[in-house]
Amino acid sequence: MPLQGGVATCLGIRHGAGSYCTDQSYPGRKYQVERIVSTSGVKEGICRVFVPHTTAGLTINENADPTVPADILMELNKIVPFDDGYRHTEGNSAAHIKSSLVGVDLTVFVTGGRLLLGTWQGLFFCEFDGPRRRKVFVKVTGE
Amino acid sequence: MPLQGGVATCLGIRHGAGSYCTDQSYPGRKYQVERIVSTSGVKEGICRVFVPHTTAGLTINENADPTVPADILMELNKIVPFDDGYRHTEGNSAAHIKSSLVGVDLTVFVTGGRLLLGTWQGLFFCEFDGPRRRKVFVKVTGE
Amino acid sequence: MPLQGGVATCLGIRHGAGSYCTDQSYPGRKYQVERIVSTSGVKEGICRVFVPHTTAGLTINENADPTVPADILMELNKIVPFDDGYRHTEGNSAAHIKSSLVGVDLTVFVTGGRLLLGTWQGLFFCEFDGPRRRKVFVKVTGE
Repeated sequence: MPLQGGVATCLGIRHGAGSYCTDQSYPGRKYQVERIVSTSGVKEGICRVFVPHTTAGLTINENADPTVPADILMELNKIVPFDDGYRHTEGNSAAHIKSSLVGVDLTVFVTGGRLLLGTWQGLFFCEFDGPRRRKVFVKVTGE
Repeated sequence: MPLQGGVATCLGIRHGAGSYCTDQSYPGRKYQVERIVSTSGVKEGICRVFVPHTTAGLTINENADPTVPADILMELNKIVPFDDGYRHTEGNSAAHIKSSLVGVDLTVFVTGGRLLLGTWQGLFFCEFDGPRRRKVFVKVTGE
Repeated sequence: MPLQGGVATCLGIRHGAGSYCTDQSYPGRKYQVERIVSTSGVKEGICRVFVPHTTAGLTINENADPTVPADILMELNKIVPFDDGYRHTEGNSAAHIKSSLVGVDLTVFVTGGRLLLGTWQGLFFCEFDGPRRRKVFVKVTGE
């Protein structure tokens, strides 16, 4: 199956216009990876997901109670303050740092034509410097 | 080789009964991945490990001196306090956040029928909300 | 293609002799992975990178403005202080912890004979306890 690129629309809190450098969107968008897996026809294999951005990321966490991703973002924003004497002049250093903490690549097993996730797990696209148009690369490979 | 699921028993500090939401177990259990690799018969390839839980994780770090994983847990617990005004009412938000920081998937090369780890490296199952029965998925693929 | 091992030379700030346990080198070395991809002859596939050390790591972030990796290191050093009551007596617990936060394995798509990175992305070898001679394992696989 060829690489699938797509625009991950950003759900969650949208911060106001002009507040470019203060990101309050949360790591909340479950990207439509499951659909790509099912249309790939692959029954047994793996699914790789990659975010080609430096102020966003990917994580797997609980997809049932929306307070979980909200707490994750709240705490990430405490761990990495928006302003902390950074030298990078674009005002989004915190977003870069959070991207390196959660990472931009994931590999998930595919079995029975579906992602082999735990009961509560979902994939989250983490927007740390939005809202923006973003891309996510997904590839499903049979093994 | 098919997916191998297994229950990762939790070594390390076991916190007392009733202290469900205060996790003091440490990222200490080296899961028996090496044995799965050797029984797979794969000589050259890769080994993927995946934790299907949202309050646990996987990491690779020093497997020689037990103070290293103890320090990792101590510091993670400082970085992500157990109580910090979280909204998730199950009392284990800190565990979810730590899971996203260390991650739940790993890929390690296999060569000569063994994991290609550094001299001091070991794989650690990170229990952030135990003790519980947990599963770890392991798949070894020849290339 | 067989595994490629190499010594990742460390660019960036070099701390003085004798300050072994106070790491000021930054996550700055873009390892020469792109060259390995091009010489592999693989056009479509993946590239896996693995660091076999427990006080170093790998991350993908902005490779244009050098203040970005500098800010990442500065903030990691705030999040994980060099001295914080650690029990590990080698004095490099902070480096171990940072390694677990950023991780040691990466998987990047290869397409058209090149790494499929975003416009601003580069691969960084993160030296948290240098300077030292280090190895990085790289494997390119066609799919």
